[in-house]
Amino acid sequence: MNKIMTLFAGIVFATAALAQSTDQLSGEWLLRREMFGQPWGFHRITFTVDKGKVTGTFASGRKLEGTLEGNVLHFTSREGQGTIECTATINGGAISGKFIETNLDNARNVQESVITGARLPPPRSGPAQRHEFIPKTFYREFSPLTPPVLHIWPGDTIHTTTVDAGGTDERGVRRSFGGNPETGPFFIESTWPGDTLVIHFSRIRLNRDYAISDDGIVDRALDSDMAVKMKDVGKTVRWHLDLERMIGTTELPGDHLKNFSVPLRPMLGCVAVAPRLGSASPSTTDSGRWGGNMDFNEIVEGVTVYLPVQTPGALLYVGDGHAAQGDGELNGDALETSMEVEFTVQVISNKQSVTSATRFAATIRTPRVESDSEIMTVGLGGSLEDALREATSGMSQWLEQDYGLAPSEIAQLLGTSVRLNINEAADRNAGVTARLSKQRLQTLARKQ
Amino acid sequence: MNKIMTLFAGIVFATAALAQSTDQLSGEWLLRREMFGQPWGFHRITFTVDKGKVTGTFASGRKLEGTLEGNVLHFTSREGQGTIECTATINGGAISGKFIETNLDNARNVQESVITGARLPPPRSGPAQRHEFIPKTFYREFSPLTPPVLHIWPGDTIHTTTVDAGGTDERGVRRSFGGNPETGPFFIESTWPGDTLVIHFSRIRLNRDYAISDDGIVDRALDSDMAVKMKDVGKTVRWHLDLERMIGTTELPGDHLKNFSVPLRPMLGCVAVAPRLGSASPSTTDSGRWGGNMDFNEIVEGVTVYLPVQTPGALLYVGDGHAAQGDGELNGDALETSMEVEFTVQVISNKQSVTSATRFAATIRTPRVESDSEIMTVGLGGSLEDALREATSGMSQWLEQDYGLAPSEIAQLLGTSVRLNINEAADRNAGVTARLSKQRLQTLARKQ
Amino acid sequence: MNKIMTLFAGIVFATAALAQSTDQLSGEWLLRREMFGQPWGFHRITFTVDKGKVTGTFASGRKLEGTLEGNVLHFTSREGQGTIECTATINGGAISGKFIETNLDNARNVQESVITGARLPPPRSGPAQRHEFIPKTFYREFSPLTPPVLHIWPGDTIHTTTVDAGGTDERGVRRSFGGNPETGPFFIESTWPGDTLVIHFSRIRLNRDYAISDDGIVDRALDSDMAVKMKDVGKTVRWHLDLERMIGTTELPGDHLKNFSVPLRPMLGCVAVAPRLGSASPSTTDSGRWGGNMDFNEIVEGVTVYLPVQTPGALLYVGDGHAAQGDGELNGDALETSMEVEFTVQVISNKQSVTSATRFAATIRTPRVESDSEIMTVGLGGSLEDALREATSGMSQWLEQDYGLAPSEIAQLLGTSVRLNINEAADRNAGVTARLSKQRLQTLARKQ
Amino acid sequence: MNKIMTLFAGIVFATAALAQSTDQLSGEWLLRREMFGQPWGFHRITFTVDKGKVTGTFASGRKLEGTLEGNVLHFTSREGQGTIECTATINGGAISGKFIETNLDNARNVQESVITGARLPPPRSGPAQRHEFIPKTFYREFSPLTPPVLHIWPGDTIHTTTVDAGGTDERGVRRSFGGNPETGPFFIESTWPGDTLVIHFSRIRLNRDYAISDDGIVDRALDSDMAVKMKDVGKTVRWHLDLERMIGTTELPGDHLKNFSVPLRPMLGCVAVAPRLGSASPSTTDSGRWGGNMDFNEIVEGVTVYLPVQTPGALLYVGDGHAAQGDGELNGDALETSMEVEFTVQVISNKQSVTSATRFAATIRTPRVESDSEIMTVGLGGSLEDALREATSGMSQWLEQDYGLAPSEIAQLLGTSVRLNINEAADRNAGVTARLSKQRLQTLARKQ
Repeated sequence: MNKIMTLFAGIVFATAALAQSTDQLSGEWLLRREMFGQPWGFHRITFTVDKGKVTGTFASGRKLEGTLEGNVLHFTSREGQGTIECTATINGGAISGKFIETNLDNARNVQESVITGARLPPPRSGPAQRHEFIPKTFYREFSPLTPPVLHIWPGDTIHTTTVDAGGTDERGVRRSFGGNPETGPFFIESTWPGDTLVIHFSRIRLNRDYAISDDGIVDRALDSDMAVKMKDVGKTVRWHLDLERMIGTTELPGDHLKNFSVPLRPMLGCVAVAPRLGSASPSTTDSGRWGGNMDFNEIVEGVTVYLPVQTPGALLYVGDGHAAQGDGELNGDALETSMEVEFTVQVISNKQSVTSATRFAATIRTPRVESDSEIMTVGLGGSLEDALREATSGMSQWLEQDYGLAPSEIAQLLGTSVRLNINEAADRNAGVTARLSKQRLQTLARKQ
Repeated sequence: MNKIMTLFAGIVFATAALAQSTDQLSGEWLLRREMFGQPWGFHRITFTVDKGKVTGTFASGRKLEGTLEGNVLHFTSREGQGTIECTATINGGAISGKFIETNLDNARNVQESVITGARLPPPRSGPAQRHEFIPKTFYREFSPLTPPVLHIWPGDTIHTTTVDAGGTDERGVRRSFGGNPETGPFFIESTWPGDTLVIHFSRIRLNRDYAISDDGIVDRALDSDMAVKMKDVGKTVRWHLDLERMIGTTELPGDHLKNFSVPLRPMLGCVAVAPRLGSASPSTTDSGRWGGNMDFNEIVEGVTVYLPVQTPGALLYVGDGHAAQGDGELNGDALETSMEVEFTVQVISNKQSVTSATRFAATIRTPRVESDSEIMTVGLGGSLEDALREATSGMSQWLEQDYGLAPSEIAQLLGTSVRLNINEAADRNAGVTARLSKQRLQTLARKQ
Repeated sequence: MNKIMTLFAGIVFATAALAQSTDQLSGEWLLRREMFGQPWGFHRITFTVDKGKVTGTFASGRKLEGTLEGNVLHFTSREGQGTIECTATINGGAISGKFIETNLDNARNVQESVITGARLPPPRSGPAQRHEFIPKTFYREFSPLTPPVLHIWPGDTIHTTTVDAGGTDERGVRRSFGGNPETGPFFIESTWPGDTLVIHFSRIRLNRDYAISDDGIVDRALDSDMAVKMKDVGKTVRWHLDLERMIGTTELPGDHLKNFSVPLRPMLGCVAVAPRLGSASPSTTDSGRWGGNMDFNEIVEGVTVYLPVQTPGALLYVGDGHAAQGDGELNGDALETSMEVEFTVQVISNKQSVTSATRFAATIRTPRVESDSEIMTVGLGGSLEDALREATSGMSQWLEQDYGLAPSEIAQLLGTSVRLNINEAADRNAGVTARLSKQRLQTLARKQ
Repeated sequence: MNKIMTLFAGIVFATAALAQSTDQLSGEWLLRREMFGQPWGFHRITFTVDKGKVTGTFASGRKLEGTLEGNVLHFTSREGQGTIECTATINGGAISGKFIETNLDNARNVQESVITGARLPPPRSGPAQRHEFIPKTFYREFSPLTPPVLHIWPGDTIHTTTVDAGGTDERGVRRSFGGNPETGPFFIESTWPGDTLVIHFSRIRLNRDYAISDDGIVDRALDSDMAVKMKDVGKTVRWHLDLERMIGTTELPGDHLKNFSVPLRPMLGCVAVAPRLGSASPSTTDSGRWGGNMDFNEIVEGVTVYLPVQTPGALLYVGDGHAAQGDGELNGDALETSMEVEFTVQVISNKQSVTSATRFAATIRTPRVESDSEIMTVGLGGSLEDALREATSGMSQWLEQDYGLAPSEIAQLLGTSVRLNINEAADRNAGVTARLSKQRLQTLARKQ
C-alpha cells in the first residue's frame, strides 16, 4: 500500500505543476484503486464539467454522471448489473475518495474501494529530451508498484548505468544484493496497457575491467553422465576485461585456457516492462511475455526491443549486463559486469481504450527484438518445448500483424527461413528465439 | 535371416578373390552368428595354423585352441564360466558351422548357434578410388542387416545421387515409397564397431528444378492458439528451384508471397551409419547417436560428418536432400528434392578390440559435424531438453577427447562460447546442436 | 519381401480349403501389393462374375470392370486422374499378377506393382473355439509383415504362454534374445484397419518361481543429485516368486530388505496389434497408439484391452510379463518373468470401407483398458507432457464416442474425476494413463 | 522495509513481556538485518554478559566479543577475511543498531547494515494450546516478510477458516482478490531454517453449499486436436454442494450431466511455509520445495504434511480449498470453495545451527504428505519430467533418512512399489507425486 502511495506521489510531483485547465476537474485523470487493503489497479477517466454538472468517460468507454460542488465530486456509473458510486475530494491536481460498487445479482457483495490519483499532464509540447540518470537504488522485483525513479516522454533518451547481477557497480562497490538488481523503473508518460514500448539501445558499453562468472553447468543441460562428471565444479571464476582489445581472459586459467580469450560482446540480460498487477511481482531472475531476465545475447548495442505494456507508464527496467555470453547462459552466470547504457523509447499505441492494468492487455504476444539484419521473437516457458511454441506463435503474430500474412503463408515462411536459438537454459523459464532475416522479408509487401 | 545370408554373400563376393595365405585358415575372419533363428551379431577372429594345430584370438582378446583336419575346423574357447565349442567347414574364403555354448552356472542353457562367414580381405595396397555409383534400390530402414550395395575402403570417394523424401528421382520418376528412402548402404572395409566414420562431403548439389513441401506447422511448435489458427492448413506446396540463381519460389504463391524467394542451400537431411543390431531397425524417419534423419541444415557441401560405427563395415546411408530448410524443419517437409552428392570416407580407429556389434560401442557420443568455421554436435532425444543434454554432453566429450579439457574448463568454454540451435522439431526425436567457433578454439592447445 | 510371401502362404493355407463359390473368382479377396520391391499394403476386393464379365468393388468403394477368361483375370479401375490395369491368374484360392497404375497428371509415373493374394474364407458358422497354443518362435518386432502363427475368429479364446523380457521360458530355458520377445502374432479373421480389437484377459498367471530385475533408476527419473548418488548401481537382481503366498523376495537382499517382500500382481508389459505398414517396424521395446510396450501395471487378469486395428487380421502380440511392477517401471526392468495367459478376442467393426493398411485408420485414438471398476486410456509420447496430452485426448474421445458428451461436459468430468498415473518412464515413449471410475460414469446416459 | 518492521513489532509484542534474565542482554536474540535498503535476513545470537564484558555466538558458530555499557552494546566478530563491528542500543527486549562489515580482500566493500531485533521468548512451560483464529486479511504472496497474524508454539492447534480461490468466504462475501488468498501466516516459536514443520490436519471440512469451477482444459493437457475441439469452452460453472450427502452437482448441467454427481472430498490446494528471503516472494498461485499451490487431492482431513522451514518461525500459510478435484486440476479451477480447517503443528529440529534465512536450508528436499496408508513426496517443476525427478529424489531422500536404505535398496523399493500420480497440471509448476504404501514399508527396519 505504501508503495502505491509513493507511486502516486511521484505522478503528482511530476504532473501537478503542469496541470492547466479551466476548472479543477475537466481533463484526464489517472486513478489508483485499492480494495480489501490490496491494490486493485488503475482507472483512466476523462471528466467534463459544465455548470457544476459532471460527465465523464472511463477509458473502457463506460460513462459516468455526477456533480462537482466546491472540491467535492460525486458521480454514478452504471454498466450491466453493476453500479459505481464515487465520492471524492479534489485538491490541486490530486484526487482522493472512495468507490462503492454494487452488483444487482449478489446483494451481499457491496464493495468499498479507496481511490487516489492525479490529473495527467498535458502532452509535452517541446522537443525530446536526453536524461542523464544516476541510479541510487536498485530493484529486485519487476513490480508495477515500485515508485518510478524518473518520468519521461516517448521520444526521450536516457543515459545511465547498471550494476552487475551481484549488485556491484562500475567502481567495484557493492550497491545491492544480487539477483539482477535493476536500474529503473522509468515511467513513460502517455503510455497505457495494450501499447507497445519500443526501446532502441544506442549504447551498451562496458565500464569496468572485470567480470564475475563460474564454472558450473546448469541442470537443464546436464544428463546423468555429465552430472557425475561435473559434480565437483561450480566455483567462482573472475575474468579480466580488456576494454581496448575487447577480449576477456580468466584471471586464473586452467592449463588449457592459458591462451584462451573470449571476444567481448556486451549485452543486457534484463529488459522489462512491469508485468500487470497480480498477486505478487516476479523476481528480477524471472521472465515472461513482458520481458525480464531473457539472457538473450543478441540484446546488444544497436538493437531495438519491443515489449507489451501492462501497466500505466510501462515502468521500464534494465540490468544484468554481460560482457559476453554463450547461448543459454549455461554457467548460470555469464561474464557478469556493470554497464553503461543509453536508450531512446517510443510507444506504439494500440489505439484502444483499456480500463485497467488488471486486464491483461498484450497487443504483442512475446518480447520482440530487431537488429539491422533480423527480426526476432523471444519465447519463454517452463520447458524448451513451451518456449519454442511461444517463439513460433509470437513470430507468427508479427508476420500476421505487420506483413498481413495468412496462416499458410506464415507456415511457408517459417518452414524455409526461420532460425531457432536457445537463448536461455539457466533460469526458471527456458527461452527459445525465432529469428528471420530482414533481407528475406524484403519481398513481402508490408500490410497496408 | 535371408538378409544376413545376402550380406555375407556380398562380403564373400567382394573379398574371396583377394584372400591369399599360406593355408586356408590362417588370417583374419568375420563370422556372423545366429541363435534362436535370430541374428546375434558378429565375431572377428584371427587364426594361426601350425601343423594342423589351430590357435586364435577373438577381437575381444578371448583365446581359442583347436585343430584343422582337411577343411574341418574344431576349436574350444573358455572364458570365465562359459565355453564355446566350434565345429565348422572351410570352403575357399568361406566358413560355415556351429557354436555350442555352455555355461557352468546354468546347465539347462546349452545354446547352439549357426555361424557363417568369410575371410577378410588383406589391406588394400593401391591408391584410393573414386566410385561412380548409380542407385537402383532405396532403403527405408537404417538396418545393419541390409546387404551393402558397394564395398569401399577408407580414403575412397563415392559420387552418387539421392531421391527425394517421397522417393522421386532427379528425372521426376517415382523410385520408392516415401519416408526418406536412402542411397546405400556402403560397406567400408576394415571398419569396426567403436571406430569413428568420417564423411567429407565435397558435393551436395541440386539436380532438378523443383521441390515438394507443405504449409503446415508441426505439433511440437504449436501452442493452443496457433493450433486453432493453423487448423485448416497442411496442403502440398510445390517450389520451383532456379539452379542458376540458386533461389526457390512457390509455384502458386499466396498474395503476400508473390515476390518471395528463398536462397537455396542444399543439404542432406539424413546421414547415418547402421545402428547396432537390435530387435528392430529404425525407420529412415528416425535418428539416434548413429545419425539418421537429423534434418540439420548445416550438413551442406564442404562439411565433414563424424559418426560412431556400430557394426562391421559401418554401413553408410545418405538421403533426404533439402534445397533449403529453416531451423527445425517446421513444415514437417522442407524443400524436398533429389540431390547429387560426392563424399570421401575415412576411419578413425578406436584401436580397441570389439567383440560384437551387439555391444554398444560409441567412442563418440553423438554425431559431430565440422565446417570450415565451426565444430558442432547434434543432440537427439524425445524432448528438446533431452536433445540439449545430448548436444552438451557430446560437445563436452569432444573437448575432453580432442583438446584435453578438464570439466571446469569445459564449463567455461561452453558458458562463454557455445551456440545452441534447434535443428529438428519435426520428427519423433527433437534435435539441438551445440556449436563452437574454430577461431575461438584456436587458443586451446590440442591434447598431446 | 519373403516375409510377405510367407504371410500370404499362411492366409492361403488357412482359407483355401474353405473357399466355396459358384465360380473361382466371385467373392471376397485379400490382395497384397508390392511396388519398388517394397511392400505397399493390402486391397480387399469383392468380385462378381456374370458370363465372363467381371465387376467388382474395392473396400474403398472404388469400382472395377473386366473379364475372366479361363483363369486369367483382366480388369480396369478408374478413379479421378488415376487408372489401374490389372492382369492376374487365378489358381485355386490364390491370385497372382500385376497392377499397372497410370496417372494422367504425370505421364512419367507409370507404376507397376506385383499382387498376390487369396480368397477370404466365408464367415465361420460354428461356435467360438478355444485354442491351446504352444509358442515356438518369439518375435522382437511389432511387424505387420510377420507371418501369423495362428488364424482365429472373433469370439475365440487362446490359451498360451509368454517368455520373459530376456527370452527365457517357464522352465528357465533361453528361447530368444531379449527385448520383450512376443508370443504371436495372431491373425483375427474378418478384422480390418479401422476396427477395434477387444482383448479380454481371463488369465494372466505366473508359471515359474523366479523373476529377474535390477537395481538402477532410469534416466527419466534422475535429477543431477540422484544421478551422482546412483552412479554405482545397476546390477541384476534375482527375485524368488512364492506362487502360493503370491509374494516376491530378493534372493540376495541388502541389510534393510531382509524382511522385505512385494505382493505379486502379474501383468503383461506388452499387448499390441501390428502397426500400419510403414518404412520399418517398431521394436518390441517400443509403443504407440497401437499399444506395445506400455508397461501399464493395470493390465492384469480380468481386464479388457482395446486397440485400434491397423492391418488386415489385426496381428495380435502379447509378452513381457511382470510378476509385479511399480508405476513407471523405474528400474528399467520390472520383476521380469514368464507367464501363462488366456484371452478372448472380439472385434468392434468401424463399419467403414478401408482401402489399405497404409492409411492410418484409428477409430480409437489410444489404447484403452477397462477393468471392473475403471475405464483407462494410455497416452504415449516422447515426453510426459506429450503422453499426458494423448491420454487426455484419448479419454475425451471415449467420452464423446460412447457417452455422447459435449466438449464442456468432457472438461467438467475430467476436471472433477480423472486420475492421472505415470505408467511408463523406462522406455523411449513415456506413458501417462487417464482413468475414470465406472461408478462415477454410471449417471451418464450412454449415447443412443 | 515497513513489512519487516511490522514483523518485528509482532515478535517484540509477543515476546518482550516474557523476557526474563539477570541482565538485559544475556540470552538468545533474533536480529533482523537490512542492507542497501533491502532486507538481508536474520541472525540468531546468544549473548553472555559477565561484568560488562560480552561474549556471544551466532547460530552459525561464529564468535563475538564486546562490551555492554549502560544500554549500549559494542561487539566485534572476525571470521576468515571478514569482520563485523556492531554498535547497538538495548531497550527492554528490543535491540537496534548497525553492523559495519569489512572484508580484507576488497577494501572498497565496507558495508553498513541496519539491525533491529528482539529477545527470544523462553521455552513455553505450559500445555499446548488450541487457538480459535478468525482471519481478517488474506495474503496473496508466500512471503517471509508478511507480519505473522498469530504466534504459536509447537504442539499448538489452530482452528480457522479459509476463503475460496477467488477470495469469497463461507457466507458468500468477497474478502480478497483472487489467486488463492491465504489464511496466515502463523509464526511457530522456536522454529528455524533447516527444521521440518509437521502439520497434522484434524479437520478439512466444507462450510458452504456451493463451489465455483469452469469447463476449460488447461494448455498442458491439450494437444492440437483437442485445442481445436476445446476452443469455445472456458465458462464459469457453479456447483451445488450437498453437505449432508457429500456430493456435488452442477447447477446448470448440460444434457448428459443431468444426473451426474461428484462425491465430495474436501482438500486444501495450498499449504506452505514461507520460502527463504529472495529478491521477490512467490504468488500464492505458485509452488516450490516449501509447498504452496500443490493442488494435491490427497491433502484431505487426516493427513500430515511435512515442509522444510526456510525462515525463522516457519510462517505457515493455508488456503485454496477444493470440495473435489480430479488429478492435475485439469480445469484450472477445481470445485473452489471456502473451508473450515483445524491443524496441529510440530517441529522436527535439524539440530544444526543456521545463520540466516538467506541460506537455503532444506533438510527435507520436497514437501512430504503422510496418510494412514501411504507416504508421499510432491515433486514440483517446470515440466512433468522435472516434477517426476523431484518426486523420485524426494522419496529417495526419505527412504535414506528415515529407513537408512542404500541406493541399491532404494532403487529396488521404488521399482517394485512406487505409485506415481500427476497431482498438478494447471499451474506454472507441474506436480508429480511419488507414493509408497505404509504396509509395504513395514518390513523395513527403521534407521536406528
